[in-house]
This record gives sequence, C-alpha cells and structure tokens, in this order.
Amino acid sequence: MAEPFRAIGTTPAKVDAREKVTGSSRYGTDVVRPGMLWGRILRSPVPHARLRAIDTSKAEALPGVKAVVTGADLPDVRYGFMIKDERPLARGKVRYAGEAVAAVAAVDEATAEEALELIRVDYEELPVLSDAEEALASSTLLHEEWEQYQAIFPADRKGNIVNRSQIIRGDVERGFAEADHIFEDTFRTQVQHHAYIEPHACVAEVDPKGRVTVWTCNQMPFVVRAQLGEVLQLPLSRVHVIATRIGGAFGGKCGIMVEPAAVLLARKARRPVKIVVSYEEEFAAGFPRHACTIWMKTGVKQDGTLVARDIRMVYDTGAYANFGPLCTGNCATLVMGPYKILNVRVDAYCVYTNKSIASTLRSPGGPQATFAYESQMDMIAERLGLDPVALRLQNAVADGDEWPTGQHLDKVELRRTLEEAVRVAGWAEARRRGGARGGGDGRFVRGIGLAVGTWRNGTYSTGAWVRMNEDGTVLVGAGAMDLGTGTETVLAQVTAEELGLGMDQIEVMTADTVGSRTTYVASRAVRAAAAQVRQQLLQLAAAELEARVEDLEAREGAIRVKGSPAKAVALGKLAGIAHKLKGGPLMGEGNFMGQAPHVDYQRLKSHPTPYLFNPTFATQVAEVEVDRETGNVRVLRLISVNDIGFAVNPGGVAAQIEGGVAQGIGYALMEEVKYDRGRVLNGNFMTYLIPTAPDIPRVEHRLVETLADQGIDGVKGIGEPPIIPTAAAIANAIYHATGVRIRELPFTPERVATALRQAQSGRR
Amino acid sequence: MAEPFRAIGTTPAKVDAREKVTGSSRYGTDVVRPGMLWGRILRSPVPHARLRAIDTSKAEALPGVKAVVTGADLPDVRYGFMIKDERPLARGKVRYAGEAVAAVAAVDEATAEEALELIRVDYEELPVLSDAEEALASSTLLHEEWEQYQAIFPADRKGNIVNRSQIIRGDVERGFAEADHIFEDTFRTQVQHHAYIEPHACVAEVDPKGRVTVWTCNQMPFVVRAQLGEVLQLPLSRVHVIATRIGGAFGGKCGIMVEPAAVLLARKARRPVKIVVSYEEEFAAGFPRHACTIWMKTGVKQDGTLVARDIRMVYDTGAYANFGPLCTGNCATLVMGPYKILNVRVDAYCVYTNKSIASTLRSPGGPQATFAYESQMDMIAERLGLDPVALRLQNAVADGDEWPTGQHLDKVELRRTLEEAVRVAGWAEARRRGGARGGGDGRFVRGIGLAVGTWRNGTYSTGAWVRMNEDGTVLVGAGAMDLGTGTETVLAQVTAEELGLGMDQIEVMTADTVGSRTTYVASRAVRAAAAQVRQQLLQLAAAELEARVEDLEAREGAIRVKGSPAKAVALGKLAGIAHKLKGGPLMGEGNFMGQAPHVDYQRLKSHPTPYLFNPTFATQVAEVEVDRETGNVRVLRLISVNDIGFAVNPGGVAAQIEGGVAQGIGYALMEEVKYDRGRVLNGNFMTYLIPTAPDIPRVEHRLVETLADQGIDGVKGIGEPPIIPTAAAIANAIYHATGVRIRELPFTPERVATALRQAQSGRR
Repeated sequence: MAEPFRAIGTTPAKVDAREKVTGSSRYGTDVVRPGMLWGRILRSPVPHARLRAIDTSKAEALPGVKAVVTGADLPDVRYGFMIKDERPLARGKVRYAGEAVAAVAAVDEATAEEALELIRVDYEELPVLSDAEEALASSTLLHEEWEQYQAIFPADRKGNIVNRSQIIRGDVERGFAEADHIFEDTFRTQVQHHAYIEPHACVAEVDPKGRVTVWTCNQMPFVVRAQLGEVLQLPLSRVHVIATRIGGAFGGKCGIMVEPAAVLLARKARRPVKIVVSYEEEFAAGFPRHACTIWMKTGVKQDGTLVARDIRMVYDTGAYANFGPLCTGNCATLVMGPYKILNVRVDAYCVYTNKSIASTLRSPGGPQATFAYESQMDMIAERLGLDPVALRLQNAVADGDEWPTGQHLDKVELRRTLEEAVRVAGWAEARRRGGARGGGDGRFVRGIGLAVGTWRNGTYSTGAWVRMNEDGTVLVGAGAMDLGTGTETVLAQVTAEELGLGMDQIEVMTADTVGSRTTYVASRAVRAAAAQVRQQLLQLAAAELEARVEDLEAREGAIRVKGSPAKAVALGKLAGIAHKLKGGPLMGEGNFMGQAPHVDYQRLKSHPTPYLFNPTFATQVAEVEVDRETGNVRVLRLISVNDIGFAVNPGGVAAQIEGGVAQGIGYALMEEVKYDRGRVLNGNFMTYLIPTAPDIPRVEHRLVETLADQGIDGVKGIGEPPIIPTAAAIANAIYHATGVRIRELPFTPERVATALRQAQSGRR
Repeated sequence: MAEPFRAIGTTPAKVDAREKVTGSSRYGTDVVRPGMLWGRILRSPVPHARLRAIDTSKAEALPGVKAVVTGADLPDVRYGFMIKDERPLARGKVRYAGEAVAAVAAVDEATAEEALELIRVDYEELPVLSDAEEALASSTLLHEEWEQYQAIFPADRKGNIVNRSQIIRGDVERGFAEADHIFEDTFRTQVQHHAYIEPHACVAEVDPKGRVTVWTCNQMPFVVRAQLGEVLQLPLSRVHVIATRIGGAFGGKCGIMVEPAAVLLARKARRPVKIVVSYEEEFAAGFPRHACTIWMKTGVKQDGTLVARDIRMVYDTGAYANFGPLCTGNCATLVMGPYKILNVRVDAYCVYTNKSIASTLRSPGGPQATFAYESQMDMIAERLGLDPVALRLQNAVADGDEWPTGQHLDKVELRRTLEEAVRVAGWAEARRRGGARGGGDGRFVRGIGLAVGTWRNGTYSTGAWVRMNEDGTVLVGAGAMDLGTGTETVLAQVTAEELGLGMDQIEVMTADTVGSRTTYVASRAVRAAAAQVRQQLLQLAAAELEARVEDLEAREGAIRVKGSPAKAVALGKLAGIAHKLKGGPLMGEGNFMGQAPHVDYQRLKSHPTPYLFNPTFATQVAEVEVDRETGNVRVLRLISVNDIGFAVNPGGVAAQIEGGVAQGIGYALMEEVKYDRGRVLNGNFMTYLIPTAPDIPRVEHRLVETLADQGIDGVKGIGEPPIIPTAAAIANAIYHATGVRIRELPFTPERVATALRQAQSGRR
C-alpha cells in the first residue's frame, strides 16, 4: 500500500491568513513610492468617433500638473493577445465609450481630475454598431485597417468579424434526416462584470537609464512585461513587473490596461506615477464576460438518442479582440454538451461592436454554452416524456468516447457527478413534490432542476524553483499568481510533502503566469523543483548516514533510513553542508508545460482552443422558489458535485465551489451590464446588482475523488468549473416550478414576471 | 590563432554611469517606506563597564516615541564570523566606548535623539585595557566567559588572546646561526578608517506573519541574512535582505551592525524603521583596519641571501573578534614577504582590547605586512651596500618556489612588475639624483623608494544565473555586490562576450557575497551560467539552420554559421521559440568555488587563512619631497605596476589602482584613528584627515598582462592589491630623501619632523 500523504490532502491554515485578516496585505492601491504623482485617464464619452484634435495645453498649464500624454507619445505599435488591434491610448479613432484618449499626472488626484476636464478633444462622431448581429452584417467597419493587423493564430477574419471558428463532425443534415424530433431554440446571455473589490491599480517608475518598474495588481505580470515591452518598444530586460496582492481578478486583470500610460507619465514627469482606476471606469473599460447568442438545432431519436446538433453562435467582443477569439472558441468547444453526438456543426462568430472590450471571466464560455445546451436538454426530455437525468445518462460521454473535436476522453467522471448530485438532492422525490405540474397554484411555487458542465485544465505552462537555505528552510518561487484562491498554501503543501518539512519552514513567493488553473499547473512545477532538491539531500544524506539513496526518505524535517526513522540527519544540517560544498543554496527548478491533447484538425477551422486539457465535469442541482407575482426567484438549495480527481486542500476547494456558485447565482438572477447604443447604463453597484449573503443558500458540495491515490498527479482544476452549470440548473428549476421556459439571462424579477404573464395570456 | 575578444578587454561606459551621475542611485539612506519611523542607537560612553541597570521608562513616555529596545529584547544568542562573542545590543557588560546598549524608534530623528538622552544606564566602570600588549599579558579578562564561546575554526585561544596563529618553516635559530648579518626591528601601524562617504544605513520592516525585510547598504547581504536569522532566531526563509547601492564599503560593511536593532524596533512598533548611523558612530563603532605591532628579525648572508626570518605580531582587534583572526592570519601569511626564505617563524597574536572592533579594510593585513618587510628590506640593502632592486630580485619568489606555508607557486610575475616599475621610474637616475646622500641640504629634499607586495584572490564562492527573455534580451543575477568598482559592467561584458550580445541588451542585478574579488570570482560564475544559455541557443539554432552545433557561434546578436555569418538566426527569435517550447525563459546557472591550494599543515597552527589563492604581485615606486622644517611629505610621483593576468575592463582597473593608491597615501601620511584609554579622540573628518586631490599625484600605472589570451580565466583581482605597497614605498622614499628611518605609521608632519630632529640631535 502506498504511504499516506502528510501535507497534501489536508487543510492547513492559509499561509497568507494572518496578513489578510490583519489588513496588511499590500494590494495595488497600497503601493507608495517616494515623490509619487497621481495619474488619471481621460476616456472617450462617445462610442465611435474620429479624433480630429486633442488640445492638452490648458491641462499642462494647470498648477500641480506634471505631465500630460496622449497616443502620440507612444510608438506607433498595436498590441493584442490574439489580434494586434489595440493601442494603450487612442490614435485617430475611438471605438468605444471609455476608450483611453489621454492621461495626466499631477501632485494629487483632484488636480489630475481637474486637468482631465481641461483637455479639449474634438470628436467627429461616427455611426455606432452596438449589436453584434448588425455589426456582422454591416459594411460600416470599426477597423478600416483590419487586414493589416497581425493575427497570432490562423484567424478567419473579415470586416467586423474578428474570427469565425468552426467545428464539423459527421453530417448534421443527414443526422437531422434520421431524427424523430427536431428542437430549435435561440439562447441569449448577457455581459457580466467580474465585480472584484479592487479596481485596476498600478504604480510606474522609470529610472534615468530608462528602466521601468511597474507594481500592478495583475494576474499576468509576465504578460504585462511583454506587452509593455511591445507598446513602449523596450527590451524586456529593462522592464520589471512586480505583482502585488490582488483584490479579486476572475480573469479581469490579464495584461496591460493603464500601465503604459502610467509609464509614459512617469517618464515624462521623472517621478513615480500611480493610477487607481475608478469603478465607473471599470464598468466602461474593464473586460467583462461576453454577451452571446446561441442558435441551437438538435435532432433526437424517439428513444432519446441525440443524433445531430447544429449551432450558430455570435459573440459580441466589443471594440477590440483581446481574448475574444479564445473565449468564443472555449464556448464553441463546449456548446454541444458532454454528450455522444455523431453529427455536430458549430459555427462561431466573434464580432467587433462599439462596446467595451469583452474578455475572460471565470470559465469564459462555460456558463453561456451550458445555459444553452442544458436548457434544451430539459426541453427534449419533456417533449419525449423522459426523465432529465435518464436522458443525460443515456447520452453522456464516457471513457473512450470521442469529443466532436476528435479528442479521445479518459478519466471521465460525468456519470458519477450526476448520480451523486441526484442522490444528494433526493431528486425523484423533490421532482414530484415541487413543480408546476405537481400543483402549486399559489403565489410561491417551487421547482428543482439540474445541469451538467464540462471544463478543461492546465492549458498553460509555468515554472518554479525551490531554494533550500543553509538552515534547511525553504523558499519556493512559482510562476503563478495567488488570486486569493490559496495557491501559495497549496504550493507550500506540495513542497512540504516532497521534502518532509513542516509548513512553517516554507515561504512561497508567487509572481506571474496565467489564469486559475494554478493548483493543477503550478503544483507540478513546484513538485519537480522540490524533487530536485530532495534528490540532492538524499545524496548528501547517503554519505552522512553511510546508506544507499534508495533506502532513504525525506520525512519530518530529516532524511531518514526507511524503517529506522531514528537513523536520520536533519535537513538543516544537510543544507548547511551543501551550502559549504557548493557555495550557495540547494536549488531545484521545475517546469510544467501542458501537453495539447490530440484533436482532428480535419474537423476544425480557425479554432484556437479546441483542446479539453484534462477535462473535468460537474453537476449542479438547484431548487428554487418563484414568486409568480413579482417574478422574484429565490435559490433554496444548491448542490454541486465536482469531479476533482484529488483535493490537495479540501478547504480551499470548498471555498472555490462556494465562490463559483455565488457568482453563478449572480449571473443567473441579476448581474448584467446594460448598454444604450454602446454606452454603459448601469456602471456602478447601485444599479449593477451582485448577490449578497441572503441571495446565496448554503452550498452543498460533494467531491468525486477517484484519483486521490495519485496525489497531485490526480488533481483537476476547481477555480473555474463551479460557475458553469449554475444558471442552467436554475433555468431548469424555474421551468419545473412554473412551466415557463426562459431563454435569456439573467432571470431578473422583471423578465420572469413578464415571461409568466406572457405564458398566462398565451394559455388563455 | 584564437578569436579576439569583443566585449571583454574593453572599457565600455559603465552600466550604472547614468544613474550615478544623475544622482538617482538608491543608496541605503534613500530607502523610504510608508509609515516609516526613525531609529537611533544609544551607545556606551565608557570603554568597559558592567551594566547594572537600564531604565527606558522616560524615553518610552516621550511623545512620538514608538518603541525602545535593549539587549533583553533579543534571544540570548551571541554571533560572530569566527568566534561567536558578540551581541547586537549589549547585555551584562559593555566592552568598548560606542557599544550599542539600547535603541529607540520615533516619528522623527530629533525625537529619537531626545529619547536616547532620557534612557538612564547605570554603568559600573571596570579597568580599561587599551593596549594590545598589555591585554595579552593581563589577567583582567574582557570576556570572562571566553571559553564558552563557539569558535568556527580551531582557534588557539586563551583569555584576551582571540587567536594565536603560527607558521614554522625550517629552523630560524639554525638560519640565524648561518647568517652574516642580523636585522631586528619593530614596526607599528595604526588604525585606519574606511572613510566611505555613506555611513551604515538600513530600513527594516516586519510583516504580521513575522517575516522580515531589510534594505541595507551592505557588502554581504547573504551574511546579513544569516546573522539576522541567528540573532533573532528566525528561519532564513523569513528574512529577506535587499542590498541597496553602496556609497563606499572597502570591507567596512560586512554583516550586521544596526540591522538587528532596526528589526526589533520595527517589530515592536509595527512600522518600518530606518536607522542611519552618524559619522561619530562610524568612528566609534565602525570596523576599521587593525593597528598592529610587528617585531621582525632577519638573518642575511653577506651576498644578500635571506636565510631566516622570525616574526612576532600583535594585532589589536578591539572588543570583539569579528574578522580579527582572518585579518591577523592574512598578515601572518604575507609578513615574511615574497622572498625565498627557508627558515621562517611567524607567531601572530590577535588580541582583545577595550577599543572599537577592528576588522577588514581593503587588503586587510597587506599594507601592515608590507610596511614591515619592505622597510627592513631597504635597511638590509643599505647595510650590505646592495641596490634595493637587486636585493629583491635576488631573493624574489618565482614559479616553482614554495611559500613558507607549503604552497607551490606558479604564474608569479613579481620580477616583471619590479623590472617594469624600475624602468618606468628611471630608477637608477632618480636614485642618484635625489636622496639624502646625493646632497640636498636645503629645506626640501627629494627621495625615491619602492616596495613589492603580494595578494591573493577569490577565496570565496559565488553563484550566478543568466536568464534570456523571450525577446532575446538578458538579465544576469550574480552573488556579488557592485561596491562602485564596476562589477556590474564587468559581468555584462562577460555575458556579452559569451552570448555575442551588445551591452545594451543586458541588465545586471547584483546582490550579495563578499569582498572585492568580484571580477575574479563572479565573472566565472556568470560565464558558466551564460555558457549554459549559449548551449541551449546553439542547439535550437542547429535545428533552425539545419547545421551542426559545432559549426555555429554566438556573435553579434545571432547564432551564426562559422565562416558564413549571413547564415544566422537572431537570438531574439531563438529566445521566443525557447519560451514557447519550455514555457519560460532560457536559464543558465553557474557557481564558482575557489579551490583551496595545497598547504603544509605540519607548518601551521590555528592559522585560518594560509592560502594564497591565485596570488598576484605588485611593485610601487614613490618619489617624495620632504619639508625638513615642517616634516610635511609630498608624494610627487607614484608608479604602480600590477600583475593583473588579464584586464577585463582596463578603465575599471585603472580606477581601482588610482583609488587604492590614494587610500594607501592616506594610510602612509595622515590617516589614524586615535584613542585615549579606549575612547576615540578624532571621530570626525575635521580631525581624522584623508587625502584630497592635492595630496595625490597622477598615478602612473602599468599592467603585466601575461594571461590576456586566456580571457577571464587569466584574471587576477585588482580591488585590493594597489593599496598594499604604497606606505612601504613612501617609507623607503622618505629614508632616501632624509636618511631617517621611521618605523611607525602614519608619516604625519609631526612624526617626520620629530624623527628628523631626533636624528639631527643624534648625529650631533
């Protein structure tokens, strides 16, 4: 039998708990540099215009103003993650209300703000394309020079279409011909904002040699560095980016936003410059979740077998591409659902509009896709008179099956999550008890619904090092950001496990890389680095103990002879010896590079994200109460069962599930950034509603941990999956409660009440 | 023929030139942290006392005071480089005037200063041992518990003797019996202060988890970290030391001074604390060059052959050991001079006294030893009627000879430096022209003298890494401090050479390690690290160019096919490929560990520093004018010829020679910390004189570069050697000018005038 794990699989106190609860964590806004100025950004009030002229002279003359910059101060370079179409400060045109036009640094924030008002910008307004379908068809171009933009993947572009991504498996027309029933629905989802507590904030400093240091609360400090190098035309060796603690990110703090302006101002003023973005700016110029429209046609046999699914998706990515093609691609890869369907066609458009830039938000594409296919799945079950659970189990993918992209699947625990969720929910009984059919003609009706979701892990690479000091304590550096999710704690656990050390002997420094798959990705890199250190310790100990390396183990602060734990030499002693021999600390370095699974490129066209890396599955069950008078929906119960592989830190996993579900409930019931011809209507937390404690039930979560004996090799990511099925489960529960199917998110009281009234009048 | 070097062997603009000349370098005193307090240290006014009581209550009650600490706030731990005898804040006793007794942190410096005056310390004064010979013989102990102190080398200790270090080769008594002439002299040297512009300064910050960050202008940040860990009993993973730019060090900023008090204060006040040491404190509690007394007896044959040399040395190391045994050992290893003497005995005492702690200053032990043996060498030449040059050449060590410690020598360029110096000086003519014998009965007389010195390199180990960013630019990190000597520039040159890059593509970060042998030590570590990166680039390029690795070379920003430089792939492109393949930057890591040369331990006793690592030699010729009325000595001409092996950066080498000579002239003519029963009498720059521009002639330097074809493998250190022979050469020049031999440094006008008068009256 394998040795039990000691440090992984437990929930120790978070390594950053003390700094967090004492309020001493240093976030982006907390950075102070001597002689620092305050910077503010002037943003376009109009969604589409030619910039005729910018007059900054009055602003420059205002006492206390130390620098004013515009797009003309930057090299003529466009940047972008996927299509290089964007500039840090506008030149020639603005394409959304909120686009940065100029920036000011002054001795205080009020003076900077005042200076902004003195900048005269002559806008020549242009027609506004605020609807993605309209933009797709229009001959009015947002980017006249789109053909000159560099794309870093083989994009299928044309005019306002940033990318058209396609998946074709089998022949949907033949499939539909074989089907007994055809379902055709259009689903619409809204723009959701990350609603992190902390807005974007940075401080930039430029030394006389031109070397740049930027402190920023960013998920991707290395990307910030690369992009700053690109837009400022600086060698990367002269750009140093320091990631601060981050007050929530959720995908909204990827790469540069105000950093280039801060650097320009700092360089011009010869003083450090701090910019803290206001929340009004966050709503106008942040990077929220994409709104999308999904048309879905499905052919089903009488016995419930899905035979064909044809999907057309339009993603509204706003004024610049950013991660739009990636988000659209994610959705395209997931939108047919985790079901065996031999004939699939997905035609996904990512489209420019004159709206703020949409991009990544926790599981980008996941909730949109799942809302569509899981709503329709319940509609199919109902029309065929099948139980929704049975229909899903009948069609669910399993080990050995092929995803429509051509990827072969293994370690699929979809069935288990579904069965466990149904068991915990007391599904059959609850289904009978509630529901529109089961009576409930009163004002308050209850229903239960479920949905299954899929996600992928570890797309990205990361590096890590482990350094053992001469006293045997350890410093771990990892190419990963702790977004508050407990990454540092998990990496300390992995190191403790590998080296047989206590948690208090380990300090973790995180810095960079991408996204929220950090446990999956970074823990492997750290383990590899720690293993190198362990190997060196074992060799030193073998000499000290006159034993063979293979007879030794790292355990409880020492290298010990297996079976004779008293025969041991302390790590501190070995580290001291190593330090003298080598003249430096024991070092280990590890890298982890996600290997792309095989896909069938014959079935794909211009599809940047066809891979399901190490896929994970989840089922959620929601029980709701609908107020038929006001349309208000209360979530009474939420069960989440996740295929986690192995939980390195069960407490951290629970926190991720609770947080994801809460954000999913907000997405389902209330969150929506609303626009009027490109302008944000509700850019503040008085009108953009997010759930508060009374809106969230206690989340009942269960883990499917079938890979627990593999330790961190068994880990599947948990940061993103919990948000994926929530809205779909609630949609199905509302239908169960009311008999009314709503195909558009969010389920605000207004929308639900309207739908109920329309259904009522339809029935009459 | 070997390829010529491109980047090494040249003098590019120093990489830190711009920040230095624009005044934007961040030194220790420039560090500002939000909410920072000012700390001050209370120091003992008495040289030896028992601490009966310390009452800090009034200081604590002063408005604006945030923390007061004493030795009782520290764990009961002693530290020390060689003997663990010291505490950061005194407990029980004070042993020198200037020893830290308490510390205060307050909102400003004036308040902290005021608070110091409110601390009441009850001293019970004890007998003061201020003379090393007296302390050596005394039964009064400075350290009653000396036997309990941990020694980290096999020290020969007893009472006030910190260490007695011995070298015995052959049989001096038999040698003296064979000699035709016996010379017996006692030489005395003084305490010299480093006189760096910037005093010790640090800022300490403690986070709520207890993690410590210290910014300090220290030569040895890694040692500061280790010592802070030791005295505060903290795991090293919780101590982060950041070295700032350093405004001169010269060996005076090694390891902790006020840092522990700053940390204690910061922890107690829960705010960052800055301490900037006043220059009065620097003189009282800095770590100046040892005063020493050297009794030297030499037996010589009539033909000039040195047959025996017996030496007794007493080093006054002050109240605590610090690097005292090392400095004494250096002197002991050098004090017989670079001459073939088959019978040698060195008996070297390092002794505690109630004076401030003496330690390392540029070439510790070198100038003291050289003043003694080279003064006596001229006395021998004169008595035997030999030319001083001829006597030295006759006895000089050469390749294949053995040092008295048993070390075999090679690459010895002593003879060449001597011959070249004599040639440049026009020795024979100048010797005839000036001098007491050659007339000159007026007030101003001129003389010329020379001296040869020996030094060693690369005792210590260092590590380095080289990281190539995805754009092909490079960041170099090295375990070395740039003390203003141009280390960063040299390391950039080495990297540029290895990778075929321009200097502007490289940034260097230095951090730590020891002393001034940085070019010798760090450049090898950096080269090893860069070579690893180059190897990876060559392999990538071989695939890209479809060529064999051995046919490629790194040159001018690309990997090129040898002989077909147009067939090339840019480093930036290769770095980008590597970054994608590996998911991180190209990394190389290098270490260099000085290998200790063989010595004969049969000849040594308790001698911690018997090694001449890669020895280097130098000859200096001084021409002086002596004012026989005032005793004032002017150095008219100073020729320095150094055995450098290979000059990586000739401009930097010249600067080191000029600086070393200037400091040597100060040592020879004016610098001396004076004490009255343990108390410093001249602790400021009004009374402690250092040379200014008019005191320093243009230094004529020549390099002996016999290893230039070996590149950095041929490097010998240059930071320390130039100070070594200066005082001895001046001593011999004064004798040549006046006929008066002065055996005690410095040659102040008062001392010279007195000696001349005494000689005059002796002659009468």
